[in-house]
Amino acid sequence: MKVSIIAFDDFTDIDVFFMWDLLNRVERSDWKVQILGERCCVESSTGMRIPVHARLEEANSSDVVLFASGKGTRRKMYDEPFLAAFNLDSERQMIGSMCSGALLLAALGLLEGKRATTYPTSKELLESMGVTVVEESFVREGNVATAAGCLAAQYLVGWVIEEKLGKLERDAVLKLIQPVGEGLSFSDFAPKKVTSMGNVAGTKSHVQ
Amino acid sequence: MKVSIIAFDDFTDIDVFFMWDLLNRVERSDWKVQILGERCCVESSTGMRIPVHARLEEANSSDVVLFASGKGTRRKMYDEPFLAAFNLDSERQMIGSMCSGALLLAALGLLEGKRATTYPTSKELLESMGVTVVEESFVREGNVATAAGCLAAQYLVGWVIEEKLGKLERDAVLKLIQPVGEGLSFSDFAPKKVTSMGNVAGTKSHVQ
Repeated sequence: MKVSIIAFDDFTDIDVFFMWDLLNRVERSDWKVQILGERCCVESSTGMRIPVHARLEEANSSDVVLFASGKGTRRKMYDEPFLAAFNLDSERQMIGSMCSGALLLAALGLLEGKRATTYPTSKELLESMGVTVVEESFVREGNVATAAGCLAAQYLVGWVIEEKLGKLERDAVLKLIQPVGEGLSFSDFAPKKVTSMGNVAGTKSHVQ
Repeated sequence: MKVSIIAFDDFTDIDVFFMWDLLNRVERSDWKVQILGERCCVESSTGMRIPVHARLEEANSSDVVLFASGKGTRRKMYDEPFLAAFNLDSERQMIGSMCSGALLLAALGLLEGKRATTYPTSKELLESMGVTVVEESFVREGNVATAAGCLAAQYLVGWVIEEKLGKLERDAVLKLIQPVGEGLSFSDFAPKKVTSMGNVAGTKSHVQ
């Protein structure tokens, strides 16, 4: 199971790192999460420079492809070499976006005739591309989904985990990041708490 | 106004990047956010390697010092050179922690006689250091505050922004990351929306 996050210069920090952190909380040897970009590194809009794990073309053989957001989407949506790297297929892949990442899905023809959501500042631009933009945090159309507002990353990642591994695994992962006393309890880490997957919940990620 | 995030190897990704992203949404020329570490770079528990902006000693002249969390705290709490770099003063500085970052506050003597919160897996260890650990998402004791559960970063950062810049600025920043339709609306970005600070809301960070 290969899950790829698509990044580019001028990405919004939290929209890459939240997905990255959450997806890495799945503890299975066959679950691989990677950040893809055009060059060795990508730099966020705040100047955070991170290495990428592989080139964009890796997306085409991924099971799940999630597009990040950020100011950079306004350039990338018109960037022919960037767009040409992708040969995605929503019949065999789950494809999603955070915030203005929806502009890239639209540029790739993946939102034709579909409803979608995006960050408020890219609503008009997305509409101008023929997409029916709705004021919702998460919109799923078959194997294509859009989420908007940074904290909606939970819904996008939750969708991926539930589809691939089931609802119990989704719930176990999302619980790990909730505020203490508001979804996460001290008692949640009593010894030998076993999830549906047969693993102790959070053996990798719970030490925070 | 200098806000420093303390990082170290084996940090929890979201607990650094969420604070970093949120704090960078404050748009003031005198507001500086930096990540501090012992060496050029720090690596998260998922292998995300990022550069730091300055050395740990910068914390001592910062207005706000926020400790990240992660597996690394279990080593750093006993690491004398690491701890010796800090000469913090809760009379003149705001000091806080995410999740197990509370172990570092305790190791620095900043939680003596105080209530605090931490991630469930570090509750017993923090209690063994003489701290009264409570199952709450955010605990403030004067200028020292602890938050637990990744999404509680909102409360910790919100506390900092409200104390330094006021409640309206806090609310404006936190709104930017809420899910669309659940705290953030398409209409929030109507032209010329002016905040209490006299700036158009989100002129820097809103393009996502």
